[in-house]
Amino acid sequence: MTDEQSTRELPDGRTPPAVAVVDATTPGNVGTIARAMKNFGFEELLLVDPPELDPEGDAYGYAGHARDDVLPNATEISFDRLVEEYHTIGCTAVTNEDDRRHVRFPYSTPADLAERLLRVEAQTALVFGRERVGLTNEELARIDEICSIPASAEYPVLNLGQAATVTLYELRSLTLGGDTQLPDVERVRAPEPAVDRLYDQWADLLVEINHPEEKREKTMRMLRRVYGRADLTEREANTLLGLLRRATERPADR
Amino acid sequence: MTDEQSTRELPDGRTPPAVAVVDATTPGNVGTIARAMKNFGFEELLLVDPPELDPEGDAYGYAGHARDDVLPNATEISFDRLVEEYHTIGCTAVTNEDDRRHVRFPYSTPADLAERLLRVEAQTALVFGRERVGLTNEELARIDEICSIPASAEYPVLNLGQAATVTLYELRSLTLGGDTQLPDVERVRAPEPAVDRLYDQWADLLVEINHPEEKREKTMRMLRRVYGRADLTEREANTLLGLLRRATERPADR
Repeated sequence: MTDEQSTRELPDGRTPPAVAVVDATTPGNVGTIARAMKNFGFEELLLVDPPELDPEGDAYGYAGHARDDVLPNATEISFDRLVEEYHTIGCTAVTNEDDRRHVRFPYSTPADLAERLLRVEAQTALVFGRERVGLTNEELARIDEICSIPASAEYPVLNLGQAATVTLYELRSLTLGGDTQLPDVERVRAPEPAVDRLYDQWADLLVEINHPEEKREKTMRMLRRVYGRADLTEREANTLLGLLRRATERPADR
Repeated sequence: MTDEQSTRELPDGRTPPAVAVVDATTPGNVGTIARAMKNFGFEELLLVDPPELDPEGDAYGYAGHARDDVLPNATEISFDRLVEEYHTIGCTAVTNEDDRRHVRFPYSTPADLAERLLRVEAQTALVFGRERVGLTNEELARIDEICSIPASAEYPVLNLGQAATVTLYELRSLTLGGDTQLPDVERVRAPEPAVDRLYDQWADLLVEINHPEEKREKTMRMLRRVYGRADLTEREANTLLGLLRRATERPADR
């Protein structure tokens, strides 16, 4: 662990939220959280009363590539310093039923936070509690905001590592923007003329196979619906066009 | 494991997607996936070539309450039967760069799927591959659709259990609808008259503290922005109103 905190800035000058884990007992969970941080572009891991993190043990075993940076660069910090230095957002599965108590209510969902934190400049920390009991009411009372993941009313309690993963996934827009591993589907979607040629070819084929004239318009509408939903790439549109052309032009065996 | 597949229906008659895990080697990951299924309202777990799931071992240890139903009710199934009987959606971190190859492209994100699957009637299975290498190209070629979680371009590969958790979280609208553990914040947001009384009281207080007249309009606008963003509950609005009233009415000590 290092004494210095990460101060990487986002392109717009904001610092991405830190992730704080309070009193975890299972090193594997700390590793899982570190991995999720790396998967979704977070860097600053703060540990309050952490378990021993043996470089040969589960924390490093579960961390994936985060074993090279997020995990060894984690900072140990006291809960007091955490709430003094950061705008803290405590994550909990259990909220109060209504507004009569303030400790666990009102809450934001991770999706709410993703939208709101884009506009916030303050140094923020997402705070995750210990396995089984999470954050205590005393801890939550000292925290600035409550965040809760919508889940099944029957069993809303996520495992610590899973809760952190979902929260960081939902907040990825703060760190990654649109810069993910995924190519831009819009970019490769077939241009309209290519799709139009496909429809023209279908129209020819309907004539060729003697599809009843009164049904053709309805059939064409169905085809437009099908291909419209499928978001064809140009290559797919061209391949289909070739197939249909061959189907249209083959010698009739009637 | 049972031979019969779960056939629970959603309120609108659709069956929620099944979750299939292909050739996992770590029982703990199967348990983690079962727990995420229970957290987000999924029931039907299909296992292709699963590891031994010892009731005293990690699978049950990681499953939380899913140890009582999702995990013991899991169905063992061959990959052949899986692709024959279900509309299959294969989850992979790595897509092709563009549309020149069809095996891993185009993809949907889990958020895209959540929207699309609401309109689909077919029996669907979300298919997750083995640790480290995921689904093979041969397996992906037999699958109906590709799903990929947007993540850091630098390190987009999620752990198996974490990938399933994020996907099921994002698809929770299919199973839970709006029926989560979370109380409805809209329902408890302060009614406008309560908030208006708060602003009236602030206006009185600004007079009382001799806030410069020319600045009052701007200050009131700031206060509206602050409270507007905070989504006050009725109780908070009333508590603040009481505090401000006392501040306004206290004897001046000037």
